[in-house]
Amino acid sequence: MTPHRYTLTISCPDRAGIIAAVTGFIAQHGGFIVEASYHTDQETQRFFMRQEMRADSLPFDADEFRRRFALLASEFDMHWQLTDSAQKKRIVLLVSKQDHCLNDLLHRWRSGELLVDIPCVISNHQDLRSFVEWHGIPFIHVDMTDKSAAFERIAALFEQHHGDTLVLARFMQILPPDFCDRYSERIINIHHSFLPSFVGAKPYHQAHQRGVKLIGATCHFVTSELDAGPIIEQDTVRVDHGDTPDDLVRYGRDIEKTVLARGLRYHIEDRVLVCGNKTIVFR
Amino acid sequence: MTPHRYTLTISCPDRAGIIAAVTGFIAQHGGFIVEASYHTDQETQRFFMRQEMRADSLPFDADEFRRRFALLASEFDMHWQLTDSAQKKRIVLLVSKQDHCLNDLLHRWRSGELLVDIPCVISNHQDLRSFVEWHGIPFIHVDMTDKSAAFERIAALFEQHHGDTLVLARFMQILPPDFCDRYSERIINIHHSFLPSFVGAKPYHQAHQRGVKLIGATCHFVTSELDAGPIIEQDTVRVDHGDTPDDLVRYGRDIEKTVLARGLRYHIEDRVLVCGNKTIVFR
Amino acid sequence: MTPHRYTLTISCPDRAGIIAAVTGFIAQHGGFIVEASYHTDQETQRFFMRQEMRADSLPFDADEFRRRFALLASEFDMHWQLTDSAQKKRIVLLVSKQDHCLNDLLHRWRSGELLVDIPCVISNHQDLRSFVEWHGIPFIHVDMTDKSAAFERIAALFEQHHGDTLVLARFMQILPPDFCDRYSERIINIHHSFLPSFVGAKPYHQAHQRGVKLIGATCHFVTSELDAGPIIEQDTVRVDHGDTPDDLVRYGRDIEKTVLARGLRYHIEDRVLVCGNKTIVFR
Amino acid sequence: MTPHRYTLTISCPDRAGIIAAVTGFIAQHGGFIVEASYHTDQETQRFFMRQEMRADSLPFDADEFRRRFALLASEFDMHWQLTDSAQKKRIVLLVSKQDHCLNDLLHRWRSGELLVDIPCVISNHQDLRSFVEWHGIPFIHVDMTDKSAAFERIAALFEQHHGDTLVLARFMQILPPDFCDRYSERIINIHHSFLPSFVGAKPYHQAHQRGVKLIGATCHFVTSELDAGPIIEQDTVRVDHGDTPDDLVRYGRDIEKTVLARGLRYHIEDRVLVCGNKTIVFR
Repeated sequence: MTPHRYTLTISCPDRAGIIAAVTGFIAQHGGFIVEASYHTDQETQRFFMRQEMRADSLPFDADEFRRRFALLASEFDMHWQLTDSAQKKRIVLLVSKQDHCLNDLLHRWRSGELLVDIPCVISNHQDLRSFVEWHGIPFIHVDMTDKSAAFERIAALFEQHHGDTLVLARFMQILPPDFCDRYSERIINIHHSFLPSFVGAKPYHQAHQRGVKLIGATCHFVTSELDAGPIIEQDTVRVDHGDTPDDLVRYGRDIEKTVLARGLRYHIEDRVLVCGNKTIVFR
Repeated sequence: MTPHRYTLTISCPDRAGIIAAVTGFIAQHGGFIVEASYHTDQETQRFFMRQEMRADSLPFDADEFRRRFALLASEFDMHWQLTDSAQKKRIVLLVSKQDHCLNDLLHRWRSGELLVDIPCVISNHQDLRSFVEWHGIPFIHVDMTDKSAAFERIAALFEQHHGDTLVLARFMQILPPDFCDRYSERIINIHHSFLPSFVGAKPYHQAHQRGVKLIGATCHFVTSELDAGPIIEQDTVRVDHGDTPDDLVRYGRDIEKTVLARGLRYHIEDRVLVCGNKTIVFR
Repeated sequence: MTPHRYTLTISCPDRAGIIAAVTGFIAQHGGFIVEASYHTDQETQRFFMRQEMRADSLPFDADEFRRRFALLASEFDMHWQLTDSAQKKRIVLLVSKQDHCLNDLLHRWRSGELLVDIPCVISNHQDLRSFVEWHGIPFIHVDMTDKSAAFERIAALFEQHHGDTLVLARFMQILPPDFCDRYSERIINIHHSFLPSFVGAKPYHQAHQRGVKLIGATCHFVTSELDAGPIIEQDTVRVDHGDTPDDLVRYGRDIEKTVLARGLRYHIEDRVLVCGNKTIVFR
Repeated sequence: MTPHRYTLTISCPDRAGIIAAVTGFIAQHGGFIVEASYHTDQETQRFFMRQEMRADSLPFDADEFRRRFALLASEFDMHWQLTDSAQKKRIVLLVSKQDHCLNDLLHRWRSGELLVDIPCVISNHQDLRSFVEWHGIPFIHVDMTDKSAAFERIAALFEQHHGDTLVLARFMQILPPDFCDRYSERIINIHHSFLPSFVGAKPYHQAHQRGVKLIGATCHFVTSELDAGPIIEQDTVRVDHGDTPDDLVRYGRDIEKTVLARGLRYHIEDRVLVCGNKTIVFR
């Protein structure tokens, strides 16, 4: 049983007294904080915070919290949201043929580690239908012949399934800029290089060509500029001269799936706040 | 120029409202918090916090802060302290013949990375005198023939130099239990294994004998039980079958010095709080 | 398409001229070496080597190679074997209820990364039947009420399916000593700690209790002494004071599966040679 | 006492029988191989090898080895060299004001870990004179007002001190292209980023700006194209949103010094062979 929690995330211009005001509001209603994180971005002088509270310690529900908190929020000019752990986030997965990230995410989901709903998996290929359907999750094939129509269809499916976040789990298609803009901070990609190195196609071959001694993977929000969105999580693994591009691809799969799983988890738990083209990740 | 900061560390029985009370106190005096960390130990239901504030945002000095805060502290039954970054901690180093940790720490000190005073270095050998004295730091030799007298002398030197923390930078002598008890949470050691594996002498040889695939180092507070005190920091490095015990010793030196430097830094910055035989490290 | 390879592994008393004799034998028949590794164990003065050759560069098949090589082998008093990549190894998996290692290994197998045959999966529970059978692999339930009979049954199944290696993929039962002895160097286990720390049950809880700053996993050959067999592969991951035992279990799953996958891969590719209670791993 | 060794490194067009021919030559003279490594570059079909032998197992000295081996070498069209561990390599260090790499390398040298001669340290500043001279090593200041004359002077000093390798231990000047070409594969630099990301000036600030979650360092051979030479060694370390550019600089120093020390060690031990713009590192 996961405990019932409210998570409050805030960003606002920095000044003295913000923490006291917010924690004072919570304390005044008997709220019990179980995790609290803060950060000030030096460049923009913007303040970010995340408070996780025991839902049962508060005398009202999430909506009432939001109503009461709004006054304080406007006083400090806050962007903020309160999420309720009882409302699972809805994640739509986009895949092509490679299934290592899909396999990893679905295992975490079916074992109860990844606490989300997955209303459907969308793909431009049929290969992964059987595996997805074994999990009891609808698998929807979208033809990519007309890319513009295809992405309209994907957007429609995402809306219709009330998706919160779209996860590109090794989806081998470039998203149209307007699609990226429409779902700003709601699309997560796993790129198979340690960005900003090796943007674009065949990054492991680029890495092999350059002779690097470690390769990496990057989980990031998708923006209209290719592989240039805010980075959520990265990791690297050691390789050497004996490794072929195929070996790099194989090692890479292991970091891709763990980096995507970690990044997605942070996002699901409202740990990721965006500041310009960077992220704050309250781990 | 390092900014002038106050750091408040607290532990007390957990309950709702602690953060609000403490940050309320700070805000009421205009205090500007630059870093804040919290933790509740589930087993003991004890709450731990660390607040770092801009000294210039407060209308009074550290002593006045302490006076005013005492009332609130007693209300919540707090163990607490406020440190002032203008008062550098005084670190006494104990060394034998091996100098990799000493060399590393003295470099960090002379380059301004490690913001402490080092009133003296004490050793049971003469080998490192010239290197220490080149830094303008007194080097004091203590004869170990009579161990009991030697540790009385070390204690006297530590007191006389107003030492805050005693750092065993590869000091190859076991400290008497009463000495450990006397300076509880004030003696830091670097042990050359990934504890709890390979306690005691020649851990790299023990590791080689067992055929482990990684070796490690552990920075911990010294207690009267050998290599069993609260762990502050650890790290590991990969080895393989081709590595001799001498190779492990060589790799080990590199992790020993970084692990000790990190652990000591956390301690100096009041990031390490002890809870039973464990540490909370607010990084 | 994987290239057709022969792999020759040898151990013998060390002396000058072994490499020349072996590579001379290979060269004399036009054999093309694609990977070669050597090691001398200093304690036992025993020499170990692994040669991987292109099968198509040799004018005869594996059996003929073995016949011709036998003379040379006896001259140097070698323990040796030649394996043929066309003969896939047969791996029998033993599981209980936890499926993260199973899920990982079956994905590597179905994606063609793990080049083995899996004739069956054996379990003391029914939970994982559907997932295994989706892969078209027979799932065999063995009742553990009578442990002695159960292990006789497992041995019979292993023999009947011509298993080469038995993999304990989080199998939560202790194997009888005679079973371990019977299949010496043929049973691989994943233990959920960084051995030799935290032998036995609930290692993550032991780790949490001790307050270590990294946790680990160990892939090793099973011997009759619990968790004390030759270590094949290990890895660690950073944790901190905020992590509960459940968090450690969650982080641990990720290293368990990668460590087991790596260790098994090394074993399958004949990269692991045993020397006393240690392994040589020719990566 | 370091054992007396000969190290033979070879590159030549790949074909069957090379290993047999070389190890046959060694065995025929009773030579005892203690370490052997091989690699074929798939793109160029070039073969690389390194053999380390006990000098006392051979009936002749290094010069006689070279004379006798020349015939075999020309038959296989080899580029090759034989080095004698009794002839220490001569390393000239170039530094500016930052001394973390210098401090690290000089410690490794004075503790006997780095088995080289350091005939002098050259700098464009006076800051590090006293520290270098404490080691009994000549410190030579070179004025950079006329860059062309300065690098002529550096070349002259390098020649006059019979330097084998020039190490840029955080030398903050760009070397002229002709200087780089003249000492091809003999100049080693430490760059403070994970190349190919963040070439050029202020890489930690570039990294902070991009919001990467790990930073790195790269040890590479210097070529006339800035930060684009063959990479010898790299490593990364985790950072997060709370780290300022100054924090990155501080973390970075620790990886810079270990990456340079490892890369230099590999080079000194003749473990680094260059293939196009990549390195083979026989660790």
